[in-house]
Amino acid sequence: MDEFSFIDAIKQKDYKQPTLVKGIGDDAAVFRSTSDIVATVDTFVEHIHFSLETMDPFHIGYRVLAANISDLAAMGSEPAFYLVSMCIPKSWNQQALEEIYRGMRDLAAKHRMDLIGGDTVSGDSLMISITAMGYVPKDKVRYRSDARPGDVVFATGTLGDSRAGLEMLLEGQECKDKDDYIQRHRLPEPRVALALGLQELDRVALNDISDGIASEANEIAEASGIELTIIEEKVPVSQSFHQFTEKQQYDWKLSGGEDFELLGTVSVANWPKVQELAAETETPVQQIGYVREAEEPRVLIQLREETKRLTKSGYTHLK
Amino acid sequence: MDEFSFIDAIKQKDYKQPTLVKGIGDDAAVFRSTSDIVATVDTFVEHIHFSLETMDPFHIGYRVLAANISDLAAMGSEPAFYLVSMCIPKSWNQQALEEIYRGMRDLAAKHRMDLIGGDTVSGDSLMISITAMGYVPKDKVRYRSDARPGDVVFATGTLGDSRAGLEMLLEGQECKDKDDYIQRHRLPEPRVALALGLQELDRVALNDISDGIASEANEIAEASGIELTIIEEKVPVSQSFHQFTEKQQYDWKLSGGEDFELLGTVSVANWPKVQELAAETETPVQQIGYVREAEEPRVLIQLREETKRLTKSGYTHLK
Repeated sequence: MDEFSFIDAIKQKDYKQPTLVKGIGDDAAVFRSTSDIVATVDTFVEHIHFSLETMDPFHIGYRVLAANISDLAAMGSEPAFYLVSMCIPKSWNQQALEEIYRGMRDLAAKHRMDLIGGDTVSGDSLMISITAMGYVPKDKVRYRSDARPGDVVFATGTLGDSRAGLEMLLEGQECKDKDDYIQRHRLPEPRVALALGLQELDRVALNDISDGIASEANEIAEASGIELTIIEEKVPVSQSFHQFTEKQQYDWKLSGGEDFELLGTVSVANWPKVQELAAETETPVQQIGYVREAEEPRVLIQLREETKRLTKSGYTHLK
Repeated sequence: MDEFSFIDAIKQKDYKQPTLVKGIGDDAAVFRSTSDIVATVDTFVEHIHFSLETMDPFHIGYRVLAANISDLAAMGSEPAFYLVSMCIPKSWNQQALEEIYRGMRDLAAKHRMDLIGGDTVSGDSLMISITAMGYVPKDKVRYRSDARPGDVVFATGTLGDSRAGLEMLLEGQECKDKDDYIQRHRLPEPRVALALGLQELDRVALNDISDGIASEANEIAEASGIELTIIEEKVPVSQSFHQFTEKQQYDWKLSGGEDFELLGTVSVANWPKVQELAAETETPVQQIGYVREAEEPRVLIQLREETKRLTKSGYTHLK
């Protein structure tokens, strides 16, 4: 494959970001900003993070960019640019590659993001690394260290769906709403609209749920030095989620990961405002717990009959 | 290897950039700028772009970041931040990995750059992708499209050395100044000081010499729509470079690549100023040709007895 013709094939004809000074075509891209800039990188490797057995190339591109956009949303920022680095085995043809880019472009267009750089090299396994950048007004960055005792803990959307979809694909199993679960796995929608809506608030602690809520809650607890309690039966799940075994439900909703929903905490006073913003942005949001002072940072899970400690990996043990 | 302990091992204790708002430790990094921002990504794969036969892990890290910094310099910008994405085979141990990071850190420190993000995954082959960002004052970005008829064409440093060093390493050959050539290959020094000095000028066309001057000159010619002539005997080479065969000299200095020097064009009126800035920044600089109007963009090479057309790959043919 000719590198230059490939670059021409994936290069955007028009750029959407008014702050872009120079896109693809020189030694580097240039942009101009009066807002703070948020930057993140995520890397995905075939057979580890994705597989052609469960995804088409289009889904792969879409999902890799979704993971990056979700990180930008978790910082309260508006997606703006992305750069793509790809390592491609010789066995892949140009059409499949263009499908990966088409998947990215499809999601990028929804958020008016521009592809401003990239590098494509040959290698043994398919690897995609995306650096994404976004804008956030000064002092509106959302840190995981901003949770405070007394806060309401909330989550968006439903959890465990992506994992359920993956399991259906891997096991070739049937279930109710199978297509919906698979869609959640292949084409996740990061919660940008709510994240931007929350800019109205002075303080919100935010994480995106990429590794499962057990892991993200622990990150907030550690960064903020607080005790975060999750009430198990409040964790939002899809209507047909109860068809799965109790163990599956429990594992998938707490540790399934890759739902790319948001986990956050706000003061009780601001909780109604969050609900209002959620309604405005058509984002399902649910209180799932609360924050308390802690001698040591930790996450508790309040089950029907007892409260246990919840580790990053989703394992529970006595307090 | 535990991902979290590894991140702790490579995380900077102190950040150098005053514009950094948040470094590693949340969903993404945050910085604040009043200058324009330049962003570039470069990806390197073991056995294709580098090999442990010719480099230590320290050199690999150093050189990958050097390639990125060179792109920033070619845009006239000051290096500020970098994010590292790495794919690591299980056969690599943590010590070798930390050496790669130490190589990057060593070069980063010279330019006061901060590591603000990264992602490390497992895979079959070692791959390193760096996204680097720099600052440039508004309207001081250096495009390859800014060459004009009448311009002086100049190059920094000496060309062909990196390739000579690589050949010595691969062939296990001896030569005069062998260590210097090997050093140029393993630890290239991007020309940041001169690039920043040139900010005084209104117009400079710049490219960094990563793929060889034949390739870079053609990029300037095409982007600017001009004819660029290189005078072969003016192309700067090291003193002991004449020890190599005529064919080696010719190939290496025109197409060797990875010298990470700068190729530029400025008006005749500004050429003395470039020489002055070169002296101030202790950067060797040499006029190597001139720019003329062209019906079709092209690069010519003026040999002792004739002038030929020079293609991107370094191949010459009749005009």
